[in-house]
Amino acid sequence: MADYDLVVRGGLVASGVGTMRCDIGIRGGRIVALAESITDGAATLDAGGLLVLPGGVDSHCHIEEPARGGYVGTGGDLAVTVNEESFRTASTSAFAGGTTSVVCFVPQWKGEGILPRLADYEQRAAKGMLDYSFHQIISDPTDEVLEREVPQIVARGIRSLKVFLTYEPLHLSDEQFLKVLATARRHGCLVTVHCENYAAIKWRTEMLIKAGMTAPKYHAWSRPVVVEREATHRAIALAELVDQPIQVFHVSCAEAAEEIARAQHRGLKVWGETCPQYLTLTAADMDRPGFEGAAYMCSPSPRTEAEQGRVWEMIRRGTLDVVSSDHCGFSMAGEAGKAANGRDAPFRDIPNGIPGLAARLPILFSEGVSKGRISLEHFVRLTATNPARLMGLAPRKGAIAIGADADLALWDPKKRVTIANPLMQHAIDYTPYEGLEVTGWPVATVRRGEVVMRDGVVQGEPGTGQFLPRGPYDFIAPRGVLADGFDAAPRG
Amino acid sequence: MADYDLVVRGGLVASGVGTMRCDIGIRGGRIVALAESITDGAATLDAGGLLVLPGGVDSHCHIEEPARGGYVGTGGDLAVTVNEESFRTASTSAFAGGTTSVVCFVPQWKGEGILPRLADYEQRAAKGMLDYSFHQIISDPTDEVLEREVPQIVARGIRSLKVFLTYEPLHLSDEQFLKVLATARRHGCLVTVHCENYAAIKWRTEMLIKAGMTAPKYHAWSRPVVVEREATHRAIALAELVDQPIQVFHVSCAEAAEEIARAQHRGLKVWGETCPQYLTLTAADMDRPGFEGAAYMCSPSPRTEAEQGRVWEMIRRGTLDVVSSDHCGFSMAGEAGKAANGRDAPFRDIPNGIPGLAARLPILFSEGVSKGRISLEHFVRLTATNPARLMGLAPRKGAIAIGADADLALWDPKKRVTIANPLMQHAIDYTPYEGLEVTGWPVATVRRGEVVMRDGVVQGEPGTGQFLPRGPYDFIAPRGVLADGFDAAPRG
Amino acid sequence: MADYDLVVRGGLVASGVGTMRCDIGIRGGRIVALAESITDGAATLDAGGLLVLPGGVDSHCHIEEPARGGYVGTGGDLAVTVNEESFRTASTSAFAGGTTSVVCFVPQWKGEGILPRLADYEQRAAKGMLDYSFHQIISDPTDEVLEREVPQIVARGIRSLKVFLTYEPLHLSDEQFLKVLATARRHGCLVTVHCENYAAIKWRTEMLIKAGMTAPKYHAWSRPVVVEREATHRAIALAELVDQPIQVFHVSCAEAAEEIARAQHRGLKVWGETCPQYLTLTAADMDRPGFEGAAYMCSPSPRTEAEQGRVWEMIRRGTLDVVSSDHCGFSMAGEAGKAANGRDAPFRDIPNGIPGLAARLPILFSEGVSKGRISLEHFVRLTATNPARLMGLAPRKGAIAIGADADLALWDPKKRVTIANPLMQHAIDYTPYEGLEVTGWPVATVRRGEVVMRDGVVQGEPGTGQFLPRGPYDFIAPRGVLADGFDAAPRG
Amino acid sequence: MADYDLVVRGGLVASGVGTMRCDIGIRGGRIVALAESITDGAATLDAGGLLVLPGGVDSHCHIEEPARGGYVGTGGDLAVTVNEESFRTASTSAFAGGTTSVVCFVPQWKGEGILPRLADYEQRAAKGMLDYSFHQIISDPTDEVLEREVPQIVARGIRSLKVFLTYEPLHLSDEQFLKVLATARRHGCLVTVHCENYAAIKWRTEMLIKAGMTAPKYHAWSRPVVVEREATHRAIALAELVDQPIQVFHVSCAEAAEEIARAQHRGLKVWGETCPQYLTLTAADMDRPGFEGAAYMCSPSPRTEAEQGRVWEMIRRGTLDVVSSDHCGFSMAGEAGKAANGRDAPFRDIPNGIPGLAARLPILFSEGVSKGRISLEHFVRLTATNPARLMGLAPRKGAIAIGADADLALWDPKKRVTIANPLMQHAIDYTPYEGLEVTGWPVATVRRGEVVMRDGVVQGEPGTGQFLPRGPYDFIAPRGVLADGFDAAPRG
Repeated sequence: MADYDLVVRGGLVASGVGTMRCDIGIRGGRIVALAESITDGAATLDAGGLLVLPGGVDSHCHIEEPARGGYVGTGGDLAVTVNEESFRTASTSAFAGGTTSVVCFVPQWKGEGILPRLADYEQRAAKGMLDYSFHQIISDPTDEVLEREVPQIVARGIRSLKVFLTYEPLHLSDEQFLKVLATARRHGCLVTVHCENYAAIKWRTEMLIKAGMTAPKYHAWSRPVVVEREATHRAIALAELVDQPIQVFHVSCAEAAEEIARAQHRGLKVWGETCPQYLTLTAADMDRPGFEGAAYMCSPSPRTEAEQGRVWEMIRRGTLDVVSSDHCGFSMAGEAGKAANGRDAPFRDIPNGIPGLAARLPILFSEGVSKGRISLEHFVRLTATNPARLMGLAPRKGAIAIGADADLALWDPKKRVTIANPLMQHAIDYTPYEGLEVTGWPVATVRRGEVVMRDGVVQGEPGTGQFLPRGPYDFIAPRGVLADGFDAAPRG
Repeated sequence: MADYDLVVRGGLVASGVGTMRCDIGIRGGRIVALAESITDGAATLDAGGLLVLPGGVDSHCHIEEPARGGYVGTGGDLAVTVNEESFRTASTSAFAGGTTSVVCFVPQWKGEGILPRLADYEQRAAKGMLDYSFHQIISDPTDEVLEREVPQIVARGIRSLKVFLTYEPLHLSDEQFLKVLATARRHGCLVTVHCENYAAIKWRTEMLIKAGMTAPKYHAWSRPVVVEREATHRAIALAELVDQPIQVFHVSCAEAAEEIARAQHRGLKVWGETCPQYLTLTAADMDRPGFEGAAYMCSPSPRTEAEQGRVWEMIRRGTLDVVSSDHCGFSMAGEAGKAANGRDAPFRDIPNGIPGLAARLPILFSEGVSKGRISLEHFVRLTATNPARLMGLAPRKGAIAIGADADLALWDPKKRVTIANPLMQHAIDYTPYEGLEVTGWPVATVRRGEVVMRDGVVQGEPGTGQFLPRGPYDFIAPRGVLADGFDAAPRG
Repeated sequence: MADYDLVVRGGLVASGVGTMRCDIGIRGGRIVALAESITDGAATLDAGGLLVLPGGVDSHCHIEEPARGGYVGTGGDLAVTVNEESFRTASTSAFAGGTTSVVCFVPQWKGEGILPRLADYEQRAAKGMLDYSFHQIISDPTDEVLEREVPQIVARGIRSLKVFLTYEPLHLSDEQFLKVLATARRHGCLVTVHCENYAAIKWRTEMLIKAGMTAPKYHAWSRPVVVEREATHRAIALAELVDQPIQVFHVSCAEAAEEIARAQHRGLKVWGETCPQYLTLTAADMDRPGFEGAAYMCSPSPRTEAEQGRVWEMIRRGTLDVVSSDHCGFSMAGEAGKAANGRDAPFRDIPNGIPGLAARLPILFSEGVSKGRISLEHFVRLTATNPARLMGLAPRKGAIAIGADADLALWDPKKRVTIANPLMQHAIDYTPYEGLEVTGWPVATVRRGEVVMRDGVVQGEPGTGQFLPRGPYDFIAPRGVLADGFDAAPRG
Repeated sequence: MADYDLVVRGGLVASGVGTMRCDIGIRGGRIVALAESITDGAATLDAGGLLVLPGGVDSHCHIEEPARGGYVGTGGDLAVTVNEESFRTASTSAFAGGTTSVVCFVPQWKGEGILPRLADYEQRAAKGMLDYSFHQIISDPTDEVLEREVPQIVARGIRSLKVFLTYEPLHLSDEQFLKVLATARRHGCLVTVHCENYAAIKWRTEMLIKAGMTAPKYHAWSRPVVVEREATHRAIALAELVDQPIQVFHVSCAEAAEEIARAQHRGLKVWGETCPQYLTLTAADMDRPGFEGAAYMCSPSPRTEAEQGRVWEMIRRGTLDVVSSDHCGFSMAGEAGKAANGRDAPFRDIPNGIPGLAARLPILFSEGVSKGRISLEHFVRLTATNPARLMGLAPRKGAIAIGADADLALWDPKKRVTIANPLMQHAIDYTPYEGLEVTGWPVATVRRGEVVMRDGVVQGEPGTGQFLPRGPYDFIAPRGVLADGFDAAPRG
């Protein structure tokens, strides 16, 4: 009888601190051996000439998420939409791009508790092939939700609460945000934050629309850098007050990143994430003819080429240590996606979000590693190790290590590919990265020891994706009830 | 016939760029000559051995201000109070301390327009002896107020709008604040801002009170430095978005001042003020037995001795360029002042504010000039020249110059005085600076050529104070309607 | 008999803190009255429609200075040159440009003491018309010089020592520099410093010349920004060690200015000067055909247009608070100036320096005030008040104040002039600002009550310039012998 | 036949990105397998309950180094000393403390070439048991040395040049330093730098000694923080000019570290090292009675407790990423060590340096990991992975990875030990850490698969240590001849 179910042979294995040439022995879905030579596998996957990377961990994906009003500036005008990407298509897309785990979002609708939607969402998620964990969105932090329901979801292995500081149907006031932070502190959750100033965007939007400036490109005008910087500073300040760790999502600019760096230098537990769109797209992409600009619309807005350079710099400095996709796809055709409010809708009423699950790793590898901006190991940390650790998925996910799940991406660092939508294998009818040439591409994906993608062909039984429950972990130790914060006089 | 109504002889005249030994010839209430020797005055004031300073300009004073709910954490519980200090007593106190002009606050009550209270306040102010201008508080920025009433008060010479980001009955939301900023931009007004985060203070206050921590000292616990820094950053960011100059009031700590410095380095028109209480008092003063701590309660809270040193540093660097009193007195005895809600009231329900009109110049001179922290000319700029200029009162006020009003403080730089409440000559029954020893004291005050204080004896006919209307001025040029801001693409 | 020798009537008098419309009464060469109207003058100068500014104080001028080796990269190759500008021609040029006082440089030659050259230089200086004080260059700080001669020059009213950290015949080692700093500390002198790293420039220069890159433009290549930043940091650090105030001369770039700002924020007495060439010229000017580039060669090198913007920013922030000319002229024709080593000499052997005495005020006024970069009063501080105070010439010079010398520039703020060499009225055969259009021009200059320039016609009796002795003054109080520095344990 | 020579069983294996519970299979001195369970070893080492760490890499050790004048302020007074620590005793000490590789220093004596001393040093080094690489000290950078000898040592696998900016017999001038930087650039070497300003220390030392302040504690007075900050800034600036990577050795204070951080933020290849002495000792330790203070004398000087906290902060921020020992031992007794110039010698003449080879890992583990200041993986990076990589010893050294040398430290994280000199097992007669209590201690050390220490008993055949030649590596790619630097115009 073979010692191993699968052996990956001859690759250059990359981790967050270097590379080593070795074979990988897999048994029961886990990595059980790393050795110079392993020959006794029931099956073998040849990695000769390839890199072997930990399967990507995408800690920020919107998948099959029933949202009331969608991610738009105004809420009530839009019918309830279920995000087009199903867990099945998301799995296909993730595997195509070398990603094996995601953290996605359980919605909360205003006026409702969180448990019913969680139950519904658990059923949806169970139908995919990739492994998943949940962020719980809190858009209506009633006492019932915070005191009775949150402990229950924590008990079920959800350890991150997502809050929005903008979007009509989602944004929290400072008072609500403080309550969520305090609740997270008590129960040992991370809080992830969408940082843009709601009132400022609303104010600018109304003026733009009043002035007839309604085309997609004015989306960028409605939310300049200062709006993101302000909300970032405020989120940090309130988290500092409560003594609660936070991750700032999708940082698009140096000014916001600088606020994060200052907080880190004060010793605070504040982390920053960015996304491929802020490294490759610009606001000018939204200035394409007609409705086409809507294809590039997400929030925060893509900025300028100069800003991309500054974001790379903040990655290099370590201020931004996770690169997620913020996958949130709406198709351009049809009536359920970008055009849900019509193709002539003002920018305010066009759903925000772009798909990027499959494109994330190839873009970051190509723009980062192939172009010499970051090292291979930095790439691995940004896309797998760091998100897994920060989200509490380590040591099971995010690294090639004994005992870890056998999630692998076999990567051809020389392969040149022009991104096109069919390669993305998602449910969305376009990719904003169409035509982008990349060097480096995943040629096989292994999820818990099973080869789920090979040369672009995805396989895998629907329903085999596993929920990844999270217990307490280093970064987010519970800190007791809030009264603790009052046992000492204030700092200043 | 004498050429001059009054000649001030033999003093060392100090201005914002040096000193000169000269006589001052005054005619018609104005300075008309500075010369080595002037002998032909109808009257003479001997300044031998004294400094001759511009009369103090205190750009932040609450005087006889009918406030609904007072300056407390909660609004509705407190009956309407008229601030105890009348314009007559304020005049006496100001003259006693070498100050000749103030900018005070026209209240707005929620649910009302601003014009009726302005009419009332104008009548009150006209009964004093000192010269005055008004900040218009905006606590309910309806369209009616912003579009119809603000232009009228601007026409009447009011060029600054005051907003609060905290206090239950006064605080504005970000959306309201933006509207005020935009209105100020259109009409060429300065916006002055009380920067503390309303929601954070409310949240901490509720927890403190729930925990039984209600003594005056917990006022400081309810509003630590981070709460001030956050609101300062936010005020700056929103002002940056609107392209509108602001002055941040009563900066108590280096973290908030640092935000102002950063804004100044970006080229923004952002100024910072501090007050003597942040240079001499600490949070520990509120930890005196029983109700006594209430005597030192103001907002932001006094901090620590170390923080005082940092505030001096930010004065020295020029980040903070105005020192006002934030005079806002409530007597300790009786039922209309600090004890309006009872002597056992939780800190939240005790009116915030301390008197400081008379003490401002002596304290800053003694702690600053006598102790070698700042130069004499820096003192003059901080207390007279800068506030006059920033508020649009220059060249009439704030400097000893040909054509300027003959407002002077004759100052004995060697005189040692122990501060005691009778010396303050105000309506309040205490001073928080009781017992503080100072070196340097005003021995005579001249207002528009009239000797209104001599050796502590104040004279002056009630009703002789003049309103100081302000037109457009350098710092605050109108910038057109807001649509202008949209003629260019956003910076990022 | 008239009360005043001269009355300047009807001008708008500008000082460092504002403007006032008044007449100026002058008697015995000093300002003795400022008043709304003065009519009893023996003579009258009509300033209607004009600004009346303090006469310019140029605290950094090389005039008629016998230099061994000149200001070149190498020393021994060049014969002794006396700087072409005589005190007489310098006076003409200064008056033409609105400047009435200078601080110029007494040379020291290696191997010699300082007193003999001082005697010689005093005789030269006495032949001009403008008022003057001296910086004493220290290029050979022997014990004899520091211990015996420096006290003598201090007694004669010289209160600033100038050191070079580059130039072959002039540069000091760190050890020598420390000794000069310690000597200055003991006797209460300011130390002014040319900050560029000698070894780095020499190293790059040798490589450039070896590579055949000898044209004037390679002067800029030999001394990039980092070379200036390094020496600035080092000068500050050594001054910090000795606890001695310094002024950093001719700051050309933001990186060096930033070091000064950091030092100021630590509370150190460090000041920074810049010059018009760093606001209007660029390194590209040295890339003109043939020898022409030599006309723009000075050290530090002019940089880029972007850098000019950053230097303005550092002026605006107050980090750089003096604008001098660093006038140091060498004619382009003939054999005693720029071509002293031949018109084919490598850049290393071309004398560094450009003339700018007359152009300083018009350029700074036009680029600064007329273009809205700085206020009129900021201009006055930068060009007169600040240099006078920092150099210890106040209150006699630098301000329009009772008792001050009646040094005035009557300025037409609207007059448009194209700069051309004849307008400079100096001994040099060119100006690097030829063709520059400026708005604002001096139409009359008054020196100690005497009208010495009117509509460009300079008059004044040679030999009427006065030496300005300097005593101890605020900025530079003697700090006792160095052993004091060891009475306390080190900071870190 | 067993598959493995040695199997380490049951430990918790720590790397720079996490921990995993696994067995380690070793063959031929290298790690060839990591697996959940390995049973077929010829020998077994039980790591149950222990951490398994990569063997420590100490990239800064002075061992058996024939130095002319020793590390003292003055050179000529001291006879030639061979550093007491032989490679044999150093090996014992290293193994006792969990360290398995060092980088030590080949001396150069002024007036000599480097090759003869290298030959001598190679023979000495070959007699030890630990693996070693060399830094080549350059104290006399003649053309012969730089052009002819350096290429030869590079060919022999030496890839780092060490320069001193202080010490009488060792310090380089800026000109010499530039030449070394340029040579390193051409051949692909790292330059490591001792950053303190020579002239400033000399100047202060002379004054101290003249004032009779000669006791050991005045060593700290002779070299305050500013002296280190200055040299650090200068080293960075010159490296920036040459475009050459450097590592700043033994950073003792935040001000110097801040200069490194600024350089890193500009994108420069500048790294910073610190040492346990700057985390645990203070200047006050040198103020012990009589000669005892000499035991704590090293350069830079230990600072204050507050400074220790700031150094930890700079470790936490990543600015300082290597912790070495700077082992440089001189015994207190006898005439060859600290008292080489007598027990009454002024501080200037006492050799600088303290022993720390064995103490490094326990101190950093205890003060860092056990006290919660850094994570276990951060500890591994600081002490093994980072120095191995930065010095070009990776992937052979510094990590537990397939193919790497089997260098391991088995660590008991709970073991409490009071440091005492016998535990250090070195040749020096004291340890400055005597009496320090630590939690965490190495219980076995493995060097290339051989158990060389167990429970404090060191074994190992003299002469088994291997030289570690270094080829070109990532951080230090050759950049061509210097002329390249001139193909582009200067930055500013």
